[in-house]
Amino acid sequence: MTELTKQDLLYKGKAKEMYSTEDPEVVWVHYMDQVTAFNGKKKVQMSGKGAANCNISSLIFKDLTANSIPNHFIEQIDDNNQLVKRVNIIPLETVVRNMASGSFERKFATEHLMKFEKPVVEFFYKSDELDDPFINESQAEALGVATPAQMTTMITIALQVNKRLKNIFLNMNIDLVDFKVEFGIDGTGNLILADEISPDSCRLIDKSTGNSLDKDVFRKGLGELVPVYDEILDRLKTVEA
Amino acid sequence: MTELTKQDLLYKGKAKEMYSTEDPEVVWVHYMDQVTAFNGKKKVQMSGKGAANCNISSLIFKDLTANSIPNHFIEQIDDNNQLVKRVNIIPLETVVRNMASGSFERKFATEHLMKFEKPVVEFFYKSDELDDPFINESQAEALGVATPAQMTTMITIALQVNKRLKNIFLNMNIDLVDFKVEFGIDGTGNLILADEISPDSCRLIDKSTGNSLDKDVFRKGLGELVPVYDEILDRLKTVEA
Ligand SMILES: Nc1ncnc2c1ncn2[C@@H]1O[C@H](COP(=O)(O)OP(=O)(O)O)[C@@H](O)[C@H]1O
Ligand SMILES: Nc1ncnc2c1ncn2[C@@H]1O[C@H](COP(=O)(O)OP(=O)(O)O)[C@@H](O)[C@H]1O
Ligand SMILES: [Mg+2]
Ligand SMILES: [Mg+2]
Repeated sequence: MTELTKQDLLYKGKAKEMYSTEDPEVVWVHYMDQVTAFNGKKKVQMSGKGAANCNISSLIFKDLTANSIPNHFIEQIDDNNQLVKRVNIIPLETVVRNMASGSFERKFATEHLMKFEKPVVEFFYKSDELDDPFINESQAEALGVATPAQMTTMITIALQVNKRLKNIFLNMNIDLVDFKVEFGIDGTGNLILADEISPDSCRLIDKSTGNSLDKDVFRKGLGELVPVYDEILDRLKTVEA
Repeated sequence: MTELTKQDLLYKGKAKEMYSTEDPEVVWVHYMDQVTAFNGKKKVQMSGKGAANCNISSLIFKDLTANSIPNHFIEQIDDNNQLVKRVNIIPLETVVRNMASGSFERKFATEHLMKFEKPVVEFFYKSDELDDPFINESQAEALGVATPAQMTTMITIALQVNKRLKNIFLNMNIDLVDFKVEFGIDGTGNLILADEISPDSCRLIDKSTGNSLDKDVFRKGLGELVPVYDEILDRLKTVEA
């Protein structure tokens, strides 16, 4: 157990607050009881939402560590707080898709949940002013957002995460449609997985009912969100016991 | 000189008509006196426009052949007509950018005509219904539009074309901002450059005046188009003499 404590607020995002600690290489992540969608245009406070995501993301990152996938997770403090390695975030969201949904199906008019033979990987440029545009590697290199070598590593790790996540969710009777991850460079120059992996950043479909078990419940106003996230946490606890 | 003649209309596009000939491996291309923009929403007939583009594209493809860049060009028949190798077009437009303009500068809010250290390459999915969406290699592979090996070859050839075109236009006192090419598979299975290279498919800026010498004159209603295209043809004839 750590003796580090929460110091100054470094950044308040849409779902989490990042605090410095006594160790310059370690940040304290507080998961807030807030959910947003459509680039922050829809925003609601929800008791229990932060705890669900903090617990889910902690369990998943522990699993990834056990499977040798390099990541920022150090330890969970309590229901809403984690310690992670501080990184310089690469401003690209990396999306992996196993089935067509969201922007992919809108853009290419494909059948909803069409299965891909190989996972599709996409980058989006993290920029609130530009509305997170879809970007290719050549553009990202030209804009100085990431180097080709970094993007190759990000794709490799993202596909490893996909393999592992697909498996975990399959054991929970859930199809992993797609998910988004973020990467950063740690104090020793290593490119590692950062941020969170939770129903905020994954599209999850119950294999028996076909129901969404993720933030789409909130985006589309399909019902109460926290019970859905708690259901994910319960199933995850059984498979990661 | 060929003895082939124009047979059946195979396809009437926005700028050209493609006819079969007595040789199943050869198509007759007729350059029309028509100019369109915004995916066909703006369309005008202009005497002399087809001849200018047919002459310009023929001179450029001859130069590319002389520089060992594999392409479909066989011969020019007259001011408006060419013979080319018949190919199965890969439904991707390949865009090469040397400076920021058009959709790039709109999307990333970059300075107009910002120079790239290395050329940027982008693919757009040729689909009028989908409005030619920007696509990455992973998506194109998943949709069965092109294989990774084909896209690698397309990028390589497109960058060779860029090197050659930049040089040609520099000798004409013109900056090559960006251009679009198409590729296809010929009867023997080779991936070759097809379609046209003309002021319809290039962004060209006069180095002395800063004026556009391409279809942007029409897109933005900056003046008469045909005199501009004839000016390109005149300068091209001097450097390709
Ligand atoms: N290990 C880390 N070190 C530093 N910053 C991180 C780390 N992991 C995630 N971040 C960043 O912290 C912020 C997390 O807060 P969040 O509420 O998710 O922000 P946002 O509204 O930008 O999505 C994000 O900007 C994320 O990129
Ligand atoms: N060598 C070739 N063989 C077969 N088709 C070709 C060849 N070169 C170009 N094409 C296709 O012929 C059409 C040319 O007509 P165009 O007026 O430019 O069409 P569009 O309106 O689709 O741009 C395009 O669809 C192009 O892809
Ligand atoms: Mg976030
Ligand atoms: Mg065309």
